[in-house]
Amino acid sequence: MSDLFDRHRTVLGAALQAAQDRGYWSAFPEIPSGKIYGETAKDDGLSAYQARLGKAFDLPGHPGAKRVGKEVSPYGPSLGITYPAADADALMAASKGAAAAWGNASPEARVGVCLEILARLNRMSFEMANAVMHTTGQAFAMAFQAGGPHAQDRGLEAVAYAWAEMTRTPRSATWAKPQGKGEPIVLEKHWRIVPRGVSLVVACQTFPTWNSYPGLFASLATGNTVIVKPHPGAILPLALTVLVAREVLAEEGLPADVVLLAADEPGAEITRDLVAHPAVAIVDYTGSNAFGDWVRKNAAMRDIYTEEAGVNSIVIGATDNFAGMCANIAFSLSLYSGQMCTAPQNIYVPRGGIETDEGPKCFDAVAAGIAAAVDALIADQARAAGVCGAIANPATLGRIEAARSLGRIVRDSAPLPGAEGARTATPLILAVNADQTSAHEEERFGPISFVVAVENAAEGVARAASLARRKGAITAALYDTDDARIAAAADAFAAAGVNLSVNLTGGIFVNQSAAFSDFHVTGANPAGNASLTDTAFVANRFRVAMWRRPVAA
Amino acid sequence: MSDLFDRHRTVLGAALQAAQDRGYWSAFPEIPSGKIYGETAKDDGLSAYQARLGKAFDLPGHPGAKRVGKEVSPYGPSLGITYPAADADALMAASKGAAAAWGNASPEARVGVCLEILARLNRMSFEMANAVMHTTGQAFAMAFQAGGPHAQDRGLEAVAYAWAEMTRTPRSATWAKPQGKGEPIVLEKHWRIVPRGVSLVVACQTFPTWNSYPGLFASLATGNTVIVKPHPGAILPLALTVLVAREVLAEEGLPADVVLLAADEPGAEITRDLVAHPAVAIVDYTGSNAFGDWVRKNAAMRDIYTEEAGVNSIVIGATDNFAGMCANIAFSLSLYSGQMCTAPQNIYVPRGGIETDEGPKCFDAVAAGIAAAVDALIADQARAAGVCGAIANPATLGRIEAARSLGRIVRDSAPLPGAEGARTATPLILAVNADQTSAHEEERFGPISFVVAVENAAEGVARAASLARRKGAITAALYDTDDARIAAAADAFAAAGVNLSVNLTGGIFVNQSAAFSDFHVTGANPAGNASLTDTAFVANRFRVAMWRRPVAA
Repeated sequence: MSDLFDRHRTVLGAALQAAQDRGYWSAFPEIPSGKIYGETAKDDGLSAYQARLGKAFDLPGHPGAKRVGKEVSPYGPSLGITYPAADADALMAASKGAAAAWGNASPEARVGVCLEILARLNRMSFEMANAVMHTTGQAFAMAFQAGGPHAQDRGLEAVAYAWAEMTRTPRSATWAKPQGKGEPIVLEKHWRIVPRGVSLVVACQTFPTWNSYPGLFASLATGNTVIVKPHPGAILPLALTVLVAREVLAEEGLPADVVLLAADEPGAEITRDLVAHPAVAIVDYTGSNAFGDWVRKNAAMRDIYTEEAGVNSIVIGATDNFAGMCANIAFSLSLYSGQMCTAPQNIYVPRGGIETDEGPKCFDAVAAGIAAAVDALIADQARAAGVCGAIANPATLGRIEAARSLGRIVRDSAPLPGAEGARTATPLILAVNADQTSAHEEERFGPISFVVAVENAAEGVARAASLARRKGAITAALYDTDDARIAAAADAFAAAGVNLSVNLTGGIFVNQSAAFSDFHVTGANPAGNASLTDTAFVANRFRVAMWRRPVAA
Repeated sequence: MSDLFDRHRTVLGAALQAAQDRGYWSAFPEIPSGKIYGETAKDDGLSAYQARLGKAFDLPGHPGAKRVGKEVSPYGPSLGITYPAADADALMAASKGAAAAWGNASPEARVGVCLEILARLNRMSFEMANAVMHTTGQAFAMAFQAGGPHAQDRGLEAVAYAWAEMTRTPRSATWAKPQGKGEPIVLEKHWRIVPRGVSLVVACQTFPTWNSYPGLFASLATGNTVIVKPHPGAILPLALTVLVAREVLAEEGLPADVVLLAADEPGAEITRDLVAHPAVAIVDYTGSNAFGDWVRKNAAMRDIYTEEAGVNSIVIGATDNFAGMCANIAFSLSLYSGQMCTAPQNIYVPRGGIETDEGPKCFDAVAAGIAAAVDALIADQARAAGVCGAIANPATLGRIEAARSLGRIVRDSAPLPGAEGARTATPLILAVNADQTSAHEEERFGPISFVVAVENAAEGVARAASLARRKGAITAALYDTDDARIAAAADAFAAAGVNLSVNLTGGIFVNQSAAFSDFHVTGANPAGNASLTDTAFVANRFRVAMWRRPVAA
């Protein structure tokens, strides 16, 4: 069974090195190019996706007393796919039935299986892109990258960390304790990895693969069986993932039920039954703070990893590149219509304005500059569609409408032109005064942002850091030209557990988090209790047991 | 401040290597010898201890609205020492007041402070031995080893693991992402360690230093401030520890309140107030399962590390050294009168007897052999005192009395001869039949053991492993001569999360757990959720925060 490990040994080694160096590295090419993925890959992927529409999704041997599936593309059509569905007890029984064989497989065998699953998922990245696009509303290019190679990189990163931890303790050692002038006492000792049990991965709609692969692969590599619970609006990307995993397992003579799909429908979700089930040892959860609280209170066991929500901030103190700053912020506000957990919501700007390379700019001029940059970014219809994508959840449109009254409208939201049939919305930008409202201190998920007037940049940093401590934040950005103020902001955001980007103006954005270099979420504020992926994310997913005996003289 | 780090760099490196190799290694000599610790060390230690009796223990600058202290030696006399005492709010306020300076100190500075504290504690091991002896009831030699060098080794082990984890991610890196034919995007990235907050260490009476040093030093090294809550019956060993820690901190220009003592008295414990306090981010707890459950339900935050209780088992299938086996088991039952979390309670023996090097032995002969070996071990009055020590808690005597009716008495318990004034008890050994009682399936802390009749060794293993899953177990031992049965037992106990010792007959005992080689507790059954010390024990005690910015072209 370690053939797969040998096949992928090189990429594992490179991943381990990259995670240690934390420079740029990627195992899976992010460019949706025929030269990389094969000249027919794009068409083949689309065909494969279309062939699944309106049919029963086949997962051979998967428990399923009935079939469910009510996915509707944010671009209009219903997918019409049904999936096998079973209740929590049936899923847990199947998962536990597969546990012994998987737990007894060697770390090499398990890691080999994980790496082969990732390699196969990579080869079907175009089919996955269509599946992600039509469940999340991401534009195609983003769905390819975030749903495919970037998610696969995050999965590989988790496997690499799991491998590093599983091999930190030797499998055996000789312990020889000196006894003065007498013979030493000599014991042989043997250690093994003991998995925790059933691992439940609760995914979100907007990034069904990117946010779930770390937990899925970390638990799998460390010997736990995994039940993947997709959002009922985004089942297909994870059904494809489970299909591939089960194929690889079966080929290796292992039980396919090591990986199971817990499909359900809106209004009849089985998430609570799963989380509270006594068989569950580990929960990975991506979603709202409110349900995250419920998970923490109700999970049968306590090994819980969450990414929840927060309010991300930008603070503008000064800039030597006003146009570049506005363009960069505009892209961050527009990308996937603000439906990223890393998207900024609040932009703190001094009431008295800022210094720039274009001379002083008053508060209103800064707000107008950002709004104009959004307009420029989405002026071209095709580019707008490619940046903004569609709105995953109808409730987001309601949130935009309700937000209009929360401040002075600097830029209004509207449907994307030429996107008939799709649910779309361009960025809404509001101006508020920090002394007069706290409307911006609630998370308002979607393309909703606030330019917040504050006394100065230091007050902006203090308010943003305080908000992060109270409500959570995953990202922060700062524009400033003063090194002392930059250092103070780095201190303040670090203390609040927020990763900070400073003076981004080119083709890199605060929303972006790169595997093997950027830890995603710190785990140190209410936006989540874990980080993708660090040692803490994997080290508790298994235990180490030992046996020892005297070495015969 | 990194002078201390430089001073102790060599021992840190050796500790890291030892933790990786897991052969025998120790930084702190376990032999209470004048050649190692100085010819006057033993007398000086006793004098230092005696000089503290009947006085106010001085902790300069420590919060303390009042003084408390009601320690009574299990060997008779009251200690008469009082300690400064403050309520939970006052302790938390002082701890939080010290947080910024400690969190901002570099990992080198913090690790240097921790290593210096351990080095000074080592030099006062004789004073500590007296303090541990007269609070726990351990005999002097054991109090020296377990309270001194072995505890210091466990503390060093935690510091080494903390250092390894804090330095796993570089402090900075350059991230250069290729852009086809264009210039790469280049970012500089900076990472830092962010501590979690106030760390509470709740200690037990029987091993006040050994069981608390891992959590104390792991939290301290990773930048958290620490409040040490001793058992009200064993304050002095931890007051000495806190005193040394505060001295080192003050000398380094750091706030002494980074380490605080939460002293209290029996019947007026403040443990619940501390655990439930919203300022507490981490709890390390050693004690009963019942209070452990309360901690898990009531701790304000969720980062909880416990060592609780369990029922440890020995299974006897066969032996090629009957006398050596009986002597080894006898020592394990007698050492510190069974008041070790690693002491065996149940000895499963086939009803039809076993094969031995002395020919077949029936069930009764095996039980009698163990009882006779206990008698032989404690026949000499001085040796008996040195092995058994005294009983820490009067309730243990009541438990012995109550246990007498739970089975057929194979060996009765009695006070140690010549130990007038001390609270002592020799091992009580009962014979029971697994088909007829489950009395042995409750933890009965103290010198109480059961020889349990089962069908065969396999049934014994199955029963012991099942019991470990349900009630917890830290150790297991097996005597057998068949490699297949030994392998099956290793599988069964590993699956139950129990470390197993096989065929111990010489000067090494199932109760013993050596730092840098044996992980203490697996965390995989109800005897505890953590392991001393693995990566999982330290990796969650801090978070990593990053800031990044474009590198100027």
